Parts: sequence; C-alpha cells; structure tokens
Amino acid sequence: MAKSATPEQSNILLAFEGKNKKVPVWFMRQAGRYLPQYQALKANTPLSELFRNPEIAGGITLQPLEILGVDAAILFADILTMPSGMGFKIDFVNGKGPVIANSIHHAGDLSRFGKYSGLEYVSRTIQLVNAVLPPSIPLIGFAGSPYTVATYLCSKHTKMMYENPKAFHQLMHLLTENTIAYLKQQKEAGIKVFQLFDTWAGALRHEDYETFVLPYVQKIFKSIKLPSIYYLKNSAHLMDLMEKSGADMLSVCEVINIKDLKTKKGVQGNFLNSLLYADDKTIVEETQRLLKAAKAKHRKYIFNLSHGVMPDVNPLKLKLIVEEVHKFKWI
Amino acid sequence: MAKSATPEQSNILLAFEGKNKKVPVWFMRQAGRYLPQYQALKANTPLSELFRNPEIAGGITLQPLEILGVDAAILFADILTMPSGMGFKIDFVNGKGPVIANSIHHAGDLSRFGKYSGLEYVSRTIQLVNAVLPPSIPLIGFAGSPYTVATYLCSKHTKMMYENPKAFHQLMHLLTENTIAYLKQQKEAGIKVFQLFDTWAGALRHEDYETFVLPYVQKIFKSIKLPSIYYLKNSAHLMDLMEKSGADMLSVCEVINIKDLKTKKGVQGNFLNSLLYADDKTIVEETQRLLKAAKAKHRKYIFNLSHGVMPDVNPLKLKLIVEEVHKFKWI
Repeated sequence: MAKSATPEQSNILLAFEGKNKKVPVWFMRQAGRYLPQYQALKANTPLSELFRNPEIAGGITLQPLEILGVDAAILFADILTMPSGMGFKIDFVNGKGPVIANSIHHAGDLSRFGKYSGLEYVSRTIQLVNAVLPPSIPLIGFAGSPYTVATYLCSKHTKMMYENPKAFHQLMHLLTENTIAYLKQQKEAGIKVFQLFDTWAGALRHEDYETFVLPYVQKIFKSIKLPSIYYLKNSAHLMDLMEKSGADMLSVCEVINIKDLKTKKGVQGNFLNSLLYADDKTIVEETQRLLKAAKAKHRKYIFNLSHGVMPDVNPLKLKLIVEEVHKFKWI
Repeated sequence: MAKSATPEQSNILLAFEGKNKKVPVWFMRQAGRYLPQYQALKANTPLSELFRNPEIAGGITLQPLEILGVDAAILFADILTMPSGMGFKIDFVNGKGPVIANSIHHAGDLSRFGKYSGLEYVSRTIQLVNAVLPPSIPLIGFAGSPYTVATYLCSKHTKMMYENPKAFHQLMHLLTENTIAYLKQQKEAGIKVFQLFDTWAGALRHEDYETFVLPYVQKIFKSIKLPSIYYLKNSAHLMDLMEKSGADMLSVCEVINIKDLKTKKGVQGNFLNSLLYADDKTIVEETQRLLKAAKAKHRKYIFNLSHGVMPDVNPLKLKLIVEEVHKFKWI
C-alpha cells in the first residue's frame, strides 16, 4: 500500500478528541482467520511462525485494510505473545486455543518467570507496517490484561485466587510489569493507539474485580501515554469500575445496552458478532440502529464488534458494515 | 434413611411462603462428582448407567443429605437427560462435557426429533427417593432451559439464531413442549419443587433474550404448578426480564450484588463457588456476609452457590457452610 499523497487526518485519532465527522470503524481480530488470503498463508506455516516473522505478520496486519476499508490496522499478534517471551511454552493449536506446557500450578512456580525477552520481532513488525501505512490509518497495538492472561497461564486460576490470594497478587504484579514494558516497546516502535484486552475479568464479582484486577489495569493505563482503549467483556455489573480504569475509550460487548450506558469516557464496540451471520438487510438495520443509539448518548464512539471476528464469517458482511458506518452522518 | 418419626415442616417449602425461621440451604450439583462415595461408584460404571439405573441414581441423590445436612435433595440427572429421550445420542465423557453424535446443523435436521420417550427411569428414581426421604426434606426436580439445552444440541446455535431465526424458534418450541411434559412427569412422580437451569442465556443481548428465550421460559413456569426456581447465570443485564419469568424464586450467580438487587420474587444462591477453596475463616465470614445482605433486602431467600459444585471441592467446606447457614437467625 502506497503512502497517501494528500495526507488526511486519522478518523480514529480524531474520535479520541471528539472531532471526527465520520464514525471510525475497525474489527477486533480483523487480521487473520476469516480471510482467504490468510488461510492460504496458514496452510503451509504454523501459527507461531506467522507471529514471529515480521514480514509475514506485517503482511497479515495490512491484509484487511484494502479488503474492508477499515480506519485502523491492528497488530497481528496474540495476547500470549508477551508471556511466550517470559518463558511460557505456548503452542497455538488450530481451533483448540493455546496449550501451555509449563503452566502455573502452585505459588512456587512463580519464581521460574521474570522479565520477558526476545520479542524484537514485534517491534520490527510494527516498523514494517508503519513504513507503508498511509498517515490516515493508525496502527493499534495491544496486550492482554494481566487477569485474562493469568486465566491461561494458571491451570486453576480461581482456585489460586481464593486459596492463596497473596500468590495471585504476585502473579498479577509480575504480569503487569511485563505488560507495561511490552506496551512501551510497542509505543517506541510506532503504534499510535493501544487496546488492553480483558476477556475474562467480567466473570468476577464486583468486589473481586476491584481487589484483583482494577489496580493493575489502572497502573497500565497510567504508565502508557497514548490514546487507549479498554476492552472488558461481560462488564454489565462492572461499569462503575471500568470507568475508573484510566482508559480513554471503553470497549463493551453485547450485554451492554449502549442507550443506558452512562460514562464520561469514549465508547467502542457493542455490535453483536452473531449478526454477521444474518442477511444483509438485518445487518444494515442493526448497524444503523447502533450508530443512532451511540450518537444519541455518546460524543466519542468507535464502531467495532462485541468480540473478535469468527473464522467462518464472510468478509463481505464486514465490508457492508464498514460502508454503512462511513455513510452515517455523525455531526 | 428412615422416615422422621416426628414430621417437621420443610425449611425449603416454608421459605417459598416467607414463613421459615432458619435459612434453607442446598447446593447445585450436590449429588455426585466431589463425593468420595460417588467416585467409588463411578470408577466401575459409565455415567450414563448411573443416570439410568433408578436404584443407583436414587442412592446418589440421597448421598449428600446425611453427609452435608442440606435441606433438600436434588434429583441426580443431567440437563441432557430429556433430549436423550428425544433421540439425541449423547455421550457423557468424563471431564470433557457431553458429546452429541447427531447434533443439529441445519433447519432440516429438526424434523428428526419429536416427543421424548423412554424416561420412565426418571419417575422410578423419584419414587424410590421419595419413599425414604423424611417429610422435612423435599425432592427438587429440574430441567435445562430450552435455550441452554439448545446450545448443546445445536452445533452452531448462535449462527442458526441469526441466520435462520424461524428455525431457531421452531427448535425452542419443540424443546419447550418436551420440557413441560418432562417436568409434568417429574411432578406426577413426586417432586415438590422444580428448578429450571439456564446456564447460557445470560450471554444474550437484552432484546435477544426477550425474543428468543423469555416467552419459552414463561410458558414453562406457567404450565407447571409447583414452587419454582429459575437459575440464570450472568443475569446482570437481564434482571428486569428474569423478573417476568413467572418463577417464584430467582437463583443468581456471583455477578449480582444481592444488596442492590431489586425483585419482588424470592432469591436463591449468589455464594461464589471459588470461595470453596478458601480457608475456613474466610468461608465463615463470607457466608455470614451473604446471609446478612440477603436478610437486609429480601424476605424469601434460599442459600445456594453461584453454580454447580466443582469436582475438586472438599465436602467439609460445604458442611461448614451448611452449619453456618443453619446457625443464622433469619427472624
């Protein structure tokens, strides 16, 4: 992709200031899985290789931009990329999720892990992508939230939380320090925005989220000086604490009714993923409905899904949404 | 267990009328898995056999009563017991959840299934249990909610919901009719209370729950004239609709803060399962905290967990909770 001859301002970055005229749109997991171009690449190369090769990972990051017409690139990586640099032996098994050979069983296992290393390939990928991105398209970096990452690294994480809360806090602290370093590395390499992915903390009680999750999330958002997005799934009972996260934008899933959502932050997401299976008419109607609800209540809004794109989604459905979003008159 | 010589009134049934002096307590999945007595039985017999043999299933239903001192027996069966009578070939694989050989892939598959048959063993189990239960201990029957059952029977149920909503409603209708017949059968055999288990409908948007779930749940509660409990996991965004279910008691998981819960119904549950891994002091404190919160806000309350007992739980922790609950002064 060639650099734009007449650089225009980024729709996404303008949205962080509430100065955008069009609604920006990107999709969680837009790089990968559901694209035939990606599937062709993957047929001959293991997933871990795709992540670790900057030319390939950069190419996958760029793939959806022209196909879908989205307003941002999202780094092709995994929320377990950082822990893999900490010494966790992670096997990304097709269709089965990650398998971790040396997961944490007991408090004693914690001492085996320290500061991550060997993730220079992530910086290189960011640099390669930035070299060809038009100025209007920012590259979004990301990390998994310490809690969500812990659910994968710890074979029985809720057991550890309540059996040995001190050890669990130790694990959270270790992951938080590494996450901050990892996001700083991404910032230095050139990302313009970052998102913290918290897929599993929404399963916690209000008081447990406040004790075991919020302080670590706050520390991350305080440490990284970049426009920021906090994605928390199943956040219906946690919105007051999500508000305190320190993120600029709150990315919410389908359990939130955006019309009732009270927040001083920007809002992202909320489009139900399963609607990607519906007919075009339904998709257009639901896209418009969400845009109108967002406009009525929120000054800052970025269109996105409720969670990552599923592998069996037809890319044309995503393209249809992007077109509808861009047609919508925001101001 | 011998019939009580001096029959006393059931703590559970009194709670439905708000006339109990002690708080009643039972545990979801109290029959089975975590008990050494059950594990010994299961070592030599496949799970499906345990369900289908009334003497064995009845024995497993009774096992926890004396061990834990709970106020109710819950039928040892599975939420997929009923669909197995509809012709679904269900294999209960240890530790992996059910595997269904002939699950529904397309709308066309629906015509293969009709009214269930061959579940006389469930009635026989209920009769055997009732023959030895003291009058103070009611037997609770149950069924899976049509939506939750559909998530298991339909290989891609959300896809079907949005790609072909008419077919999904057809499936819900079929499951609802069967569920009503199945609960009527249990009532006729002698259950005193029933619970509808809805583990997965809490993942839906408010409007989708209202369209795809609520009408069917309402029909079930309207059809079965018995004290009733509706268990809905992750219900934080659905409490107004749960209130309309028609159930007498609403069983909620840990995402609900029982102090903020507004309902005219009775309330059940809310004790965080993971606390069963905590030390005794923490368990006692948290039990008391929940009881006080329930007493402050709700006239009718049954103590229970947020979801089913995990297999690696120490039964003594459950016994400790029962003792604490029974010590608590409700009125």
